[in-house]
Amino acid sequence: MRINYKRELEDAARTMILVHKPNTLIRLILRMIVRKVRVEHAGILLYEKSRDCFIVTITRGQIGSKIPAGLVRLDKHSPIIRFFNDSNNFPLLERGALLLSKINAILSDRDFFSGKEELEKLIIAIKFQMKSFDTVVCVPAYYRDNLLGILMLGEKVNKKTFKREELDFFNALANDVAMALRNAFLFEDLQLEIERNRKLFLETTMALSAAIDAKDHYTRGHTMRVTEYSLAMCRYIIADSSKNLDAKFLDDLHVASLLHDVGKIGVPEAILCKKGELTDEERKKINEHCVIGAMILEPIKALDEVILGVKYHHERFDGSGYPEGLKGEAIPYIASIISVADSYDAMTTDRPYRGAFTKDQAMVEIERCAGTQFNPYLVRVLAALYKRGEL
Amino acid sequence: MRINYKRELEDAARTMILVHKPNTLIRLILRMIVRKVRVEHAGILLYEKSRDCFIVTITRGQIGSKIPAGLVRLDKHSPIIRFFNDSNNFPLLERGALLLSKINAILSDRDFFSGKEELEKLIIAIKFQMKSFDTVVCVPAYYRDNLLGILMLGEKVNKKTFKREELDFFNALANDVAMALRNAFLFEDLQLEIERNRKLFLETTMALSAAIDAKDHYTRGHTMRVTEYSLAMCRYIIADSSKNLDAKFLDDLHVASLLHDVGKIGVPEAILCKKGELTDEERKKINEHCVIGAMILEPIKALDEVILGVKYHHERFDGSGYPEGLKGEAIPYIASIISVADSYDAMTTDRPYRGAFTKDQAMVEIERCAGTQFNPYLVRVLAALYKRGEL
Repeated sequence: MRINYKRELEDAARTMILVHKPNTLIRLILRMIVRKVRVEHAGILLYEKSRDCFIVTITRGQIGSKIPAGLVRLDKHSPIIRFFNDSNNFPLLERGALLLSKINAILSDRDFFSGKEELEKLIIAIKFQMKSFDTVVCVPAYYRDNLLGILMLGEKVNKKTFKREELDFFNALANDVAMALRNAFLFEDLQLEIERNRKLFLETTMALSAAIDAKDHYTRGHTMRVTEYSLAMCRYIIADSSKNLDAKFLDDLHVASLLHDVGKIGVPEAILCKKGELTDEERKKINEHCVIGAMILEPIKALDEVILGVKYHHERFDGSGYPEGLKGEAIPYIASIISVADSYDAMTTDRPYRGAFTKDQAMVEIERCAGTQFNPYLVRVLAALYKRGEL
Repeated sequence: MRINYKRELEDAARTMILVHKPNTLIRLILRMIVRKVRVEHAGILLYEKSRDCFIVTITRGQIGSKIPAGLVRLDKHSPIIRFFNDSNNFPLLERGALLLSKINAILSDRDFFSGKEELEKLIIAIKFQMKSFDTVVCVPAYYRDNLLGILMLGEKVNKKTFKREELDFFNALANDVAMALRNAFLFEDLQLEIERNRKLFLETTMALSAAIDAKDHYTRGHTMRVTEYSLAMCRYIIADSSKNLDAKFLDDLHVASLLHDVGKIGVPEAILCKKGELTDEERKKINEHCVIGAMILEPIKALDEVILGVKYHHERFDGSGYPEGLKGEAIPYIASIISVADSYDAMTTDRPYRGAFTKDQAMVEIERCAGTQFNPYLVRVLAALYKRGEL
């Protein structure tokens, strides 16, 4: 069966542009080479910036014949890399590729290397290297004069030599690979930056919340624990699939849990840290922390959902909570989740006016308040997590 | 001159994969069509998700002949869009393209539309629409059955009809365009997400700093102003190019300025808000805010440089500052900048123990302290900004 290489190449280019995971892309290309051209194995030496060397990343082919992935590492002093990094050597390439058969031919040509001992040494070293990898063709992939990778191919299954059009195919493919790889790497960089930024945002929010926490001796570590419980509840609810919560809701809940008590920064220390019982007036001041927190975050458009969690996490299911006395499903769901997590943590830690409940006692108390203080479904979620030992 | 369309197409595909700005990409493609195929004008109707309609985004060609960009908007009820969204109509395409000549031919064929009045009406409407755009060929660009755009081409400059290979070229190009566009849009989305996240991070940090600011009546708005002055100084220094500051430094300085007083959260309110003169003991407590701030942020790896700004913004050039008595160039540069900005704002606002200086007075005072309290170069930077009226 003849292969339409031009067509294969066009198809490959079109597929490549859509693949943004470098490893997926390389797997795809190598599989194609092994199947279409029927070589015994194919691998790719890929440049890794962080280590400044080339590593055999992925290989395809029969077990036993293929180069083991990850084990082979070549730095810039390695013969093959030196060869491809020096454009003086390019006349030795056959249609862009370095062939073992060509190497054998010039090594048996007595005149070829006269006065070029350095080159002869290099070529001998390359021959040794290619043989150790069981490789008969190396095809370089450049992006703007930078060597990004090298395709390394074993013999054809039928043991015949490679045809001109096959070499052209490899060469064009290698260049497309270089560009697709660069594209994929750029995508990966952007995605990593997004993750880094998100992490920075969460860590900074966490550090500042913990600092606010620390003002109130009795709530040390409270924010971290509430966040942990809220997220566990949310993941349970998503898995339970009876509610339609998405990744965005989980992200918002994460931030809202971290910031739920941020308004305490606006409550006078004298009240916040008072040892004895609070007066009605003082209690009122403390209760203002929900509204103060919402006011602090109010200018931030992207935190709309988060603000609902901060503002309403002291509402109660029966409408007897604050600041607005919202009832049942009218309470934003994000706030209802934080409310349960917040109360569970408050009960299981020491407070100025009482010692901590055991976890068992806290669960009994929370279940007793299902339908009055808490959303009954969320109490069931907390109970399920507790039974699983996840609290 | 004959054109090697296959080659042009390959080149185009390879260029496209590297262009990540949709508009740049489209300009490139349209310019190529106008030049290589020599059409009078070429434009692209691009799908815009936010408005759920197709808009003529960019056009190329002689002024007067080309479709005005931005003015033409087609929603999904528009004849051309309806035509390409219904695969039942595809047999009417010539090699993927809808030709005005084909439309004219079938409209003059008496039998063609018998029993298909709806289609006839649609085709007549399309003819009218194409004529109003001075367009003779429409080539749809699909990505996975979704219509992403339509190439709209004017007549050839030589007034001849389009050849088969030209139509094949347009069609292949349109599909490549669709994929490259999708790629470019994905890039754009990621970049927008990075910007959104950065904005969220800065806004949240700003809101929390402002809340901490608010604890100390006399420093209301202080953080925002210090941040503004620091960034103005840094931009001046970058433009002055005598120092090697990069965008990363500017970003770090931004965050460090916002957080420079974050440690005040750890200073008792009774001291922070005291109206009368402070005792030595109380002064010492307040001075701890630099170290407390650094401690709060310490767990955050990505804020290493920021923490230097927070910790050392009360060091003095002559070594008489705190917390470590660092001297001259040993003081982290980020901290030296904040120090000048911080002092300038402190002087120009009321404090419990004195009224505000005028800006003039503050500049005189700061220049007097060049070399003792402040880095002399940075004082010159502040003075230059002041002279320009930028403070």
